[in-house]
Amino acid sequence: VQQPAPEPVDFAIAIHGGAGAIGPKPPGEEQAYRNSLEETLAYGRDLLDSGEKALDVVEKVIIRLEDDPLFNAGKGAVYNHDGNHELDASIMDGYDLSCGGVAGVKTVANPITLARMVMDLTPHVLLAGPGADAFAGEMGVDPVPQEYFHTERGHQRWQKHLKELEEERHGTVGAVVLDRYGNLAAGTSTGGLTGKRFGRVGDSPVIGAGTYADNGSCAVSCTGQGEEFIRLAIAYNVSNRMKLTGATLLQAADDAINRQLQPDTGGLIAVDAQGNLVVIFNTSGMYRGMADSNGLFEVGIYRE
Amino acid sequence: VQQPAPEPVDFAIAIHGGAGAIGPKPPGEEQAYRNSLEETLAYGRDLLDSGEKALDVVEKVIIRLEDDPLFNAGKGAVYNHDGNHELDASIMDGYDLSCGGVAGVKTVANPITLARMVMDLTPHVLLAGPGADAFAGEMGVDPVPQEYFHTERGHQRWQKHLKELEEERHGTVGAVVLDRYGNLAAGTSTGGLTGKRFGRVGDSPVIGAGTYADNGSCAVSCTGQGEEFIRLAIAYNVSNRMKLTGATLLQAADDAINRQLQPDTGGLIAVDAQGNLVVIFNTSGMYRGMADSNGLFEVGIYRE
Repeated sequence: VQQPAPEPVDFAIAIHGGAGAIGPKPPGEEQAYRNSLEETLAYGRDLLDSGEKALDVVEKVIIRLEDDPLFNAGKGAVYNHDGNHELDASIMDGYDLSCGGVAGVKTVANPITLARMVMDLTPHVLLAGPGADAFAGEMGVDPVPQEYFHTERGHQRWQKHLKELEEERHGTVGAVVLDRYGNLAAGTSTGGLTGKRFGRVGDSPVIGAGTYADNGSCAVSCTGQGEEFIRLAIAYNVSNRMKLTGATLLQAADDAINRQLQPDTGGLIAVDAQGNLVVIFNTSGMYRGMADSNGLFEVGIYRE
Repeated sequence: VQQPAPEPVDFAIAIHGGAGAIGPKPPGEEQAYRNSLEETLAYGRDLLDSGEKALDVVEKVIIRLEDDPLFNAGKGAVYNHDGNHELDASIMDGYDLSCGGVAGVKTVANPITLARMVMDLTPHVLLAGPGADAFAGEMGVDPVPQEYFHTERGHQRWQKHLKELEEERHGTVGAVVLDRYGNLAAGTSTGGLTGKRFGRVGDSPVIGAGTYADNGSCAVSCTGQGEEFIRLAIAYNVSNRMKLTGATLLQAADDAINRQLQPDTGGLIAVDAQGNLVVIFNTSGMYRGMADSNGLFEVGIYRE
């Protein structure tokens, strides 16, 4: 779904809470997701309206989603095969392509903030495993115990996984933003797949795979089967197609999601420098929302 | 340097042992590098001549380079800031885009083989940190102690790093191959940067950044300042430019190395489906070699 933007847009934002096989939900549960998406979207929109910068809005919005146990990021992150929680995140500034990511962190409540610290405070762009947790400690980030990430639902899904009844849970979160100053930024945060192998890194912390932002093209945050998003460098793929071929954001995103990826693989949100917003997925559902300065404000879960 | 291939080429291979600020060396040391490159190149060429498949040749050639203490991969991997060795590698098959990578492994003599195991034996494409070492154990890979990776030169460079006299050592290794059956494959392996932060992941294990292979375009292995190669998804960048714009391999590689990256950042080797070989770098030197079925066989270190 692309929103035409006939009037100039001062700012725009899209958020997601993961794509996947999202079946019909009890009304109360569906409403909880809609409420969360609406509240977070309004929060991000208002930050942009008040003049906050794209990168700060991406971080703040994702912190909210990480803190919400409904989603598979931060609080509520899935259990890996060994019964632990390992979190991944990345963030990128389209202004100068500065970027940072963390993979497999176990002690950090808000991995998106740690990813930003990698970006701002180190010469590196990706830290993984115990070294990433150690970096958090050096930066004075208060550690949380593994129990912080526990949710009853996450635990039940892990138990099902151990009985081979369920292999994965989507629910990665992400945000893409155009701010009042014409800058783009993107971020993504996840607990990965339920039952994933200890040490497995998906696309979310990998710049070019799960996250990309370039003021010369667009900002992208992906969700789905991370291995496929790495294999095809999907986030960079969309940006690069716009730059090399003159494709619109919708054309580039459609090509990536509907022509390059297999069906039922996932989806992405994206925004370009003109404020065009795209939400696209090849799964049965995707938790998402988008808003802009012209009054667009909508959230969704299923295909429409 | 691109070799025109007026006659059809049955197979082709390029290898590298890293790009960087390579100053004049004592004659004995320079000869040691040339001998190693020539022997490994001849080994790979002969494997291809005898009909071995691209992916197998990439793995076998990189094992040789990993086992050679001259290079910063496997035996001879650099010391990180904490005085340990953490190794990264990835491999990709251009036939079906299957791929695997490992980051931050500490107990594996040949990370390229572990990367291939991730590709062949797991649903994942990237394992990092202790989980990657645990996977090696499950696969029956004999662990090596950290002392295995020690070299006197590596230790000295670490000591210099601690005195802030030297920040990094290049010497990543890689191989790209076209086999007799028209398939492309690429692989990369490294110890990373001397003095890197514990947990730092560079481009070498990241598909799309340090390594890419697609029979529809080319196979690429990169070396240099990994953060910049991730930021611009350089390996995928080259492949994608060929596919989207019809650029030749040389044009696409030149754009990536000489227009997108800053000077003194690194280089890459690549081969396309017609057997055109490219070695390109924007540093003062790059250890490299290339050979094909038409008798091309050359190695080099400095700019020519």
